[in-house]
Amino acid sequence: MNYQAILEEIEKEIQALFSEGKVADYIPALAKVDPNQFIMSVRLFDGTSFGVGDVNSKFSIQSISKVFTFTLALHQYGRDLYQRVGHEPSGDPFNSLVQLEYENGIPRNPFINAGAIVTTDTLVSIHKKYTFKFILDFIKKVANDDTITYDKDIYKSELENGFKNFALINMIKSYNNIHNKIDTVINTYFKQCSIMMSTSQLAQSMQYIANHGVNPLTNERLISISKAKRTSSLMLTCGHYDASGDFAYKVGLPGKSGVGGGIVAIVPQKMSICVYSPKLNAQGNSLIGTKALELFTSKTGLSIF
Amino acid sequence: MNYQAILEEIEKEIQALFSEGKVADYIPALAKVDPNQFIMSVRLFDGTSFGVGDVNSKFSIQSISKVFTFTLALHQYGRDLYQRVGHEPSGDPFNSLVQLEYENGIPRNPFINAGAIVTTDTLVSIHKKYTFKFILDFIKKVANDDTITYDKDIYKSELENGFKNFALINMIKSYNNIHNKIDTVINTYFKQCSIMMSTSQLAQSMQYIANHGVNPLTNERLISISKAKRTSSLMLTCGHYDASGDFAYKVGLPGKSGVGGGIVAIVPQKMSICVYSPKLNAQGNSLIGTKALELFTSKTGLSIF
Amino acid sequence: MNYQAILEEIEKEIQALFSEGKVADYIPALAKVDPNQFIMSVRLFDGTSFGVGDVNSKFSIQSISKVFTFTLALHQYGRDLYQRVGHEPSGDPFNSLVQLEYENGIPRNPFINAGAIVTTDTLVSIHKKYTFKFILDFIKKVANDDTITYDKDIYKSELENGFKNFALINMIKSYNNIHNKIDTVINTYFKQCSIMMSTSQLAQSMQYIANHGVNPLTNERLISISKAKRTSSLMLTCGHYDASGDFAYKVGLPGKSGVGGGIVAIVPQKMSICVYSPKLNAQGNSLIGTKALELFTSKTGLSIF
Amino acid sequence: MNYQAILEEIEKEIQALFSEGKVADYIPALAKVDPNQFIMSVRLFDGTSFGVGDVNSKFSIQSISKVFTFTLALHQYGRDLYQRVGHEPSGDPFNSLVQLEYENGIPRNPFINAGAIVTTDTLVSIHKKYTFKFILDFIKKVANDDTITYDKDIYKSELENGFKNFALINMIKSYNNIHNKIDTVINTYFKQCSIMMSTSQLAQSMQYIANHGVNPLTNERLISISKAKRTSSLMLTCGHYDASGDFAYKVGLPGKSGVGGGIVAIVPQKMSICVYSPKLNAQGNSLIGTKALELFTSKTGLSIF
Repeated sequence: MNYQAILEEIEKEIQALFSEGKVADYIPALAKVDPNQFIMSVRLFDGTSFGVGDVNSKFSIQSISKVFTFTLALHQYGRDLYQRVGHEPSGDPFNSLVQLEYENGIPRNPFINAGAIVTTDTLVSIHKKYTFKFILDFIKKVANDDTITYDKDIYKSELENGFKNFALINMIKSYNNIHNKIDTVINTYFKQCSIMMSTSQLAQSMQYIANHGVNPLTNERLISISKAKRTSSLMLTCGHYDASGDFAYKVGLPGKSGVGGGIVAIVPQKMSICVYSPKLNAQGNSLIGTKALELFTSKTGLSIF
Repeated sequence: MNYQAILEEIEKEIQALFSEGKVADYIPALAKVDPNQFIMSVRLFDGTSFGVGDVNSKFSIQSISKVFTFTLALHQYGRDLYQRVGHEPSGDPFNSLVQLEYENGIPRNPFINAGAIVTTDTLVSIHKKYTFKFILDFIKKVANDDTITYDKDIYKSELENGFKNFALINMIKSYNNIHNKIDTVINTYFKQCSIMMSTSQLAQSMQYIANHGVNPLTNERLISISKAKRTSSLMLTCGHYDASGDFAYKVGLPGKSGVGGGIVAIVPQKMSICVYSPKLNAQGNSLIGTKALELFTSKTGLSIF
Repeated sequence: MNYQAILEEIEKEIQALFSEGKVADYIPALAKVDPNQFIMSVRLFDGTSFGVGDVNSKFSIQSISKVFTFTLALHQYGRDLYQRVGHEPSGDPFNSLVQLEYENGIPRNPFINAGAIVTTDTLVSIHKKYTFKFILDFIKKVANDDTITYDKDIYKSELENGFKNFALINMIKSYNNIHNKIDTVINTYFKQCSIMMSTSQLAQSMQYIANHGVNPLTNERLISISKAKRTSSLMLTCGHYDASGDFAYKVGLPGKSGVGGGIVAIVPQKMSICVYSPKLNAQGNSLIGTKALELFTSKTGLSIF
Repeated sequence: MNYQAILEEIEKEIQALFSEGKVADYIPALAKVDPNQFIMSVRLFDGTSFGVGDVNSKFSIQSISKVFTFTLALHQYGRDLYQRVGHEPSGDPFNSLVQLEYENGIPRNPFINAGAIVTTDTLVSIHKKYTFKFILDFIKKVANDDTITYDKDIYKSELENGFKNFALINMIKSYNNIHNKIDTVINTYFKQCSIMMSTSQLAQSMQYIANHGVNPLTNERLISISKAKRTSSLMLTCGHYDASGDFAYKVGLPGKSGVGGGIVAIVPQKMSICVYSPKLNAQGNSLIGTKALELFTSKTGLSIF
């Protein structure tokens, strides 16, 4: 299939949507990006890449980082992890806190903030003050790029404005489901959200999941086949907050969005994809990114269904 | 692959689980089945079938009927249907009614009771008093069997004990999202739940979804490719109530369970499956049926992820 | 104190509010009343009465009937009643159904619809098909008027449009907290809501509660002192749905409102009051009626606090 | 009436209840009190006092402090305060956080933790770092005792274990309903909860509320008549968390409990009462204290209803 031609078609078709959506503005550092960007990368297992827009331009990965920390926690804890975080879709945002109260501090899944904070905590139990370094080293390895780092302004902005996340972590701690100091965990969490990557790097970084646990570039197995499949499953059912069902319905691929405007997706055993466009829809996912992926599976027939 | 051998292996491995779970007892007519049954059917597009147990023994399909009515409603209304029923996972059972209140009578998806009642109502708007006949005729066609009918005792039992469903339909009606008389809609709904089918018939009846809308037996297109894929997607994200995420995570196939003990599943573009075992887990899905499907994808590697 | 002069002052002061609020329109029969009415009656234990407006004009008492059925049920069951209905304020309307689910079909208190349906059911268990007659006879006695009856059009309208109440009763039945046939209970409930009374009759009918259980007109004890006080307490904490706290805060008297536009209130050991004005505030209580009672306690200093 | 004799009767009758209930143990400093204490003080406006037990023994006042901070905030802001905190009962504990989400960070009333944190914040806006001194000075004045102070161990314990309160304040801050630094507000809040007082001091300190705003000892007006009555109303409808309705129903007096085991109550225009017994019922109120007050109003007929 001529993927490059398809990406270029998509780029044309989404132009009409630039008037819609709204860039995340809950922290000043995110609000200042150019709203009318569209970048998309596709990467096959043999290393062939396709792209439109500036595929080396970096943006804040935000919740896409949850895929990496979940992989690491699942690798280290296996099914013991499920006692501290579930794997069910969370319903709607309104439920986030009541769900925690109702279910005694066990977050519904690792791809909502509450759940990602718990998976970060499980890593802090092992790697202590080196946890962020450990996470970043893993990302550098799977993205095949040693230069990746986090943005200090965004990190500081998150710390100063992240009252809802402070509320969540204190709530979970009150149920004894945070085992380390709140400051250590939340600092690590905010740093991982502030990591800057390009669509090219993110597409590369998802190869190990698409390829059932093995990075095709190095042939290194990072997680077991079964855990790679389960990560994919979780991306499908829980990857887009309360629009997860809609994404599965319209796009039909495992994916994970970030409020910074990026979305990663995989076609199992075939390829990985990353799209970036910072304006968000009402559910906090990239509006044009979601549409672009819908066009991609329509044009290629690559939905998993 | 030797599917028959795999089914026989599964049959052996699940024996140890017969002590767990509990047959549905909310209506007397369901409570009286033999609890220790296990039946499983697999059907390929060329008509080859595999099975263990009495694959012609019939049971109440219950919520599996929601797949057929959704297909019919989606076929007739297209995206207009989404204004009356969503396609997001519903979170947990606790939320069912509060969700209806919070979202003004729009059920979260067509595979929870509230949503299926609305899809039945959309069919009643068209087919009036012939709606149940219309639904049953469709099922006879896709199952390739003219003898299928519903069980009058179970139907009567549902009517007499279905207080929660009466609560739901009245609630939705109060938001003007039921357009026909409550009695007509609920009678049709309870009849479709009381239809009796065997694993062999149900496996056959799911072929058109697995085969992207075309019944491979007759080559008749019943719904568009896109609608078949969307039905599959919905089965994956919403097919097992508040254990949908867990089913996707462990089994990795689109499926739909019924409280009667049946589960259907599909491998897109490959095959359809039906398993029956009446004891249920805490979420109301067949306990052994779920385990059998997990073993099936482990042994065959046929997960969609 | 010159109560007549105070009522006339209040009548003047509330004129400015006639532009606000909205008559109940959930059933056609209620929507057709003249919106700009204001009637108020005060009655002392010696029979002296004061009034402004047409104190003999009748209106639908709606939820004010809940005071009578609660009194009757409390009289007959005593503290056993608390196992079927609580006496805590219900928070907000949003919670009505989720609260029932969360608390297994035990309504929070007898002054919300769910709770009043249960108290009616407890009376049906004793009085069977004569329950409505039994309730009406009690009201005739405490109001000292044999001509009181219900409005058949309003009753029919309730039956045809009361989907939320049908949802509630079915929900409660599913938890086995309705012991009689749904039709019998709901018909009785809708009839009691459709009773027509004037402010003069309602003020008289509340005398036994204000006078600690004894009708001062006849010296007949209808309930014990303790049960009369408890009814008053419930009127204070739960009498105005999710504006109960606000009513207690601003008016400072036990009261009960009905969606028909009436509010009854009592000054313990002193007098009873009824006000009528059909336009409602956002919480479904008479807007001008609430204000008039606030003015009344400000001017007389008769708050219980 | 012979109040001393009544108190002694009550003391005898409650002995049988010492086996029930459980001392608060969410912080170690509270868990170590002697569980089987019972102390009760009654104070009339002329200064006459009655008591059983060691009426000068001090305990942690905890949520009773909310009455003082609410009085101060109401005095300073008047009805503007209602834009930041409501005056409706909160329903049940389960709803605490969901209610905040649903109502955009406006706590239901000032006697739940969320609401008391907001009233403290309104005081911090005026008194800055002197806020705790300002609150303590007010308490010293109304209790007529300059030696009152807070317990540093309890304060430290609250700070170290108060994760739920940290969750609440961050949640409210995310809705911009906390105007000052979280640390300043929460430190002040925890200090006020850690104040130590005796039943004798607390009974004295409630005189100004019972006496419609004037301290009868000094004849100083502290708040207006209307604000004193409104504080009483709030104590009745919201003073005992999700057992507020039950307390109003059984005791029939405005009151406020603290998790330390104290309960204050007033008889409007007559007297103030304080009871202490540290074992709590399921709703977190003093089990024996509640029973003692129920006996008190039964024996004296002093319920407000």
